[in-house]
Amino acid sequence: MSMQQKIEALIEELQPAFGDRISSAAGICQQHGEDISHFPATPPDAVAFPESTEEVQQLVRACSRLEIPVIPFGVGTSLEGNILAVNGGVSVDLSRMNRILQVNEQDLDVTVQAGVTRVQLNQHLRDTGLFFPIDPGADATLGGMASTRASGTNAVRYGTMKENVLSLEVVLPDGRCITTSRRARKSSAGYDLTRLFVGSEGTLGIITEVTVRLYGLPEEMSSAWCVFPSVEEAVNAVIETIQFGIPVARIELMDEATVRAINAYSKTDFQEQPTLILEFHGSEVGARDQVEQFSDIAGAHGAEDFQWALRPEDRSRLWQARHDAAHAVAAFAPGTSQWWTDVCVPISRLAECITATQEDIASTGLVAPIVGHVGDGNFHVGICAPEDDPSLQQAADELHQRLVERALAMDGTCTGEHGIGLGKKEFLKTELGDAVDVMRLIKQALDPGRIMNPGKVFD
Amino acid sequence: MSMQQKIEALIEELQPAFGDRISSAAGICQQHGEDISHFPATPPDAVAFPESTEEVQQLVRACSRLEIPVIPFGVGTSLEGNILAVNGGVSVDLSRMNRILQVNEQDLDVTVQAGVTRVQLNQHLRDTGLFFPIDPGADATLGGMASTRASGTNAVRYGTMKENVLSLEVVLPDGRCITTSRRARKSSAGYDLTRLFVGSEGTLGIITEVTVRLYGLPEEMSSAWCVFPSVEEAVNAVIETIQFGIPVARIELMDEATVRAINAYSKTDFQEQPTLILEFHGSEVGARDQVEQFSDIAGAHGAEDFQWALRPEDRSRLWQARHDAAHAVAAFAPGTSQWWTDVCVPISRLAECITATQEDIASTGLVAPIVGHVGDGNFHVGICAPEDDPSLQQAADELHQRLVERALAMDGTCTGEHGIGLGKKEFLKTELGDAVDVMRLIKQALDPGRIMNPGKVFD
Repeated sequence: MSMQQKIEALIEELQPAFGDRISSAAGICQQHGEDISHFPATPPDAVAFPESTEEVQQLVRACSRLEIPVIPFGVGTSLEGNILAVNGGVSVDLSRMNRILQVNEQDLDVTVQAGVTRVQLNQHLRDTGLFFPIDPGADATLGGMASTRASGTNAVRYGTMKENVLSLEVVLPDGRCITTSRRARKSSAGYDLTRLFVGSEGTLGIITEVTVRLYGLPEEMSSAWCVFPSVEEAVNAVIETIQFGIPVARIELMDEATVRAINAYSKTDFQEQPTLILEFHGSEVGARDQVEQFSDIAGAHGAEDFQWALRPEDRSRLWQARHDAAHAVAAFAPGTSQWWTDVCVPISRLAECITATQEDIASTGLVAPIVGHVGDGNFHVGICAPEDDPSLQQAADELHQRLVERALAMDGTCTGEHGIGLGKKEFLKTELGDAVDVMRLIKQALDPGRIMNPGKVFD
Repeated sequence: MSMQQKIEALIEELQPAFGDRISSAAGICQQHGEDISHFPATPPDAVAFPESTEEVQQLVRACSRLEIPVIPFGVGTSLEGNILAVNGGVSVDLSRMNRILQVNEQDLDVTVQAGVTRVQLNQHLRDTGLFFPIDPGADATLGGMASTRASGTNAVRYGTMKENVLSLEVVLPDGRCITTSRRARKSSAGYDLTRLFVGSEGTLGIITEVTVRLYGLPEEMSSAWCVFPSVEEAVNAVIETIQFGIPVARIELMDEATVRAINAYSKTDFQEQPTLILEFHGSEVGARDQVEQFSDIAGAHGAEDFQWALRPEDRSRLWQARHDAAHAVAAFAPGTSQWWTDVCVPISRLAECITATQEDIASTGLVAPIVGHVGDGNFHVGICAPEDDPSLQQAADELHQRLVERALAMDGTCTGEHGIGLGKKEFLKTELGDAVDVMRLIKQALDPGRIMNPGKVFD
């Protein structure tokens, strides 16, 4: 059967249950063929909108039988082409599976369907005094965040999805449904399947439910913005902060180029120097103690122009500027498409890595601002490639290649939080060598028909 | 070939490289056939003492070819028969691979060979201002702790081995050697093989090197001991402490029976009531703030008889009493063998689970003290089975069965930190259902010859 025939057979089989929630209409397919990466749109042949785990099972069983690729889809905010239908097939849009199933306030956890987004979850939790801290910027779904092993600004204190997913419900490629763990906080019961599926980018099954940890809202939250004479001084202040065990909630670096773009976009007048933005969480006494300790460290590294924000509205203003960085960069470099890539290195190499990258960027003539979750050694480069200049596009490509190779040469990883997707398959081999064969063996064992998100992570 | 012939062939093949570091002498085999579980000794047919990863590879390749079971061995402190040679074969004693390879002070991590023990590591780190917090009680090897997904008293603040292993070097069943991750603090690069091997109990390969996170020694450490009118009140104080986000480093429960045993053993005069022992880590201001917050909570739950320990020697005295609990229980119930089992439940169910367990114990006539890492919902029962009374031995067996079933009925796990080993294979099926099939598929894919620690985790 051709793919078209297979899709027709699938729709015919599923229509009694799915009705118009399965479709091969061009517009819907087009919407599901794009993420926010630099890869060209690659639409699926159909899109299904299941409303229950049972419907996901029904769909996967049919796709398994018909040998149709299955691509789990959250809200399409992936950055490495992770949801593109490179072999065609069905995109499984989980946005209708958006129920918050059970908040366990005493246990500080919650079980949600995979289509719940992080903002939705935190709005739901508003009156409980609890919150879910993982913040990758975009309002991604919990299923998507788990699949990508996402993290973001709060990871330095609260960890990534790896540390915060307690359990998953997963529909396997053969249609069976498993729960990877009980709800106990820790367990030594067998292989850690939770962590195996976290970060597997939809290649081993479809995550249908996610149980994550919650945290009590801290009594006190305060933010600070301060500038440093150089990236080295800023990063050295970060290293000391981490080494002294100061439990900062967020510690973000922006380079000069990013601050310049933000000033232009947000009409602010921040000093255009390497900048750290921080957030401190704790009891009233504890948070102030952190602030004092950090101020001492930062001062010793030449920090100045401290701006403190204690009130929620002032904190929001500071963080809005940070979160607007991607839009600001887009506005700052009109006529370019931005390629936001990420690497992560041991923190001792971070200043060296960022400085070398800035020099490399300067040598290309490209605009490419840097923002970083520096407490983790993780940073992003927003490479602005002019849309009408093939030679600068190639320069962007080569800059990206050198950036990743530089991180790998420093015992770093080719991606701290965006995943491998389509874009970093070659780098994964360089990074982990024969370990990639072990991943392949697992993929082959769990998905012998290779229907789950084919073409991603490895070929 | 019989196993004896295979072993002879193996020793002949390896003797040029290993010399007397491979042996089938009865005494050496006997030493490697026992852990500290209640299972009878089951010695291997030979023991090898590799001194390098290359020697482990050479050994595994030969065992793979000769179809000889391979059992990784640290110091033999496992509690579920995890290292018993139930199918015969070679025990691989990693104690000579005990070099600390690289301390990265700025990155707060260290790479060690798998045979390094946690006390050895912390002694080595003494002058750096850093420490490795994971403390399962026994002075286990880092390789063993990773294999069992160990945790212990500090896990409530610092996490378990799952959170603290950054990367592993593993010799696969086919003799190849992989590194599971780079040294960056976080990564989204492919499947999380680190977490797959952590907790796999030697069934997927032999861990030869471990890279773990380190932490700065806190400026201030203080301990407290306080008693509560009931287990419920003690556990409710714990729940509130966790909910308020007070970052206690340790929060341990001992029931009346345990305190009674400790008083008899250590000649102390602690009140024989449900007791919490705590430790607070932080800056001077931060730790005091935690103490004040906890005292308020504990007071509201009827805590009394607070004993504070600020000086290192006083802290050691308190924790020594806690760490002596197993010895104290052994001395308290002469003529019995102690069967220390562990379960873990969502913390909201903990008081109920412990209370029901205490009632159950009382109904059996057995001595079975309870100690718990209650911040995690994890507790141990030291079932004292009289060695000469088969009916009480059966009562112990049934008590254990009911304990695990009770934990599972509360959405808990059959083991919080001891692993499945030989003892909990049936419970694993009850706990995770079809997910165990996924584990089997992975095992089959990575170890098709089934040479790695056969008979453990599942049949």
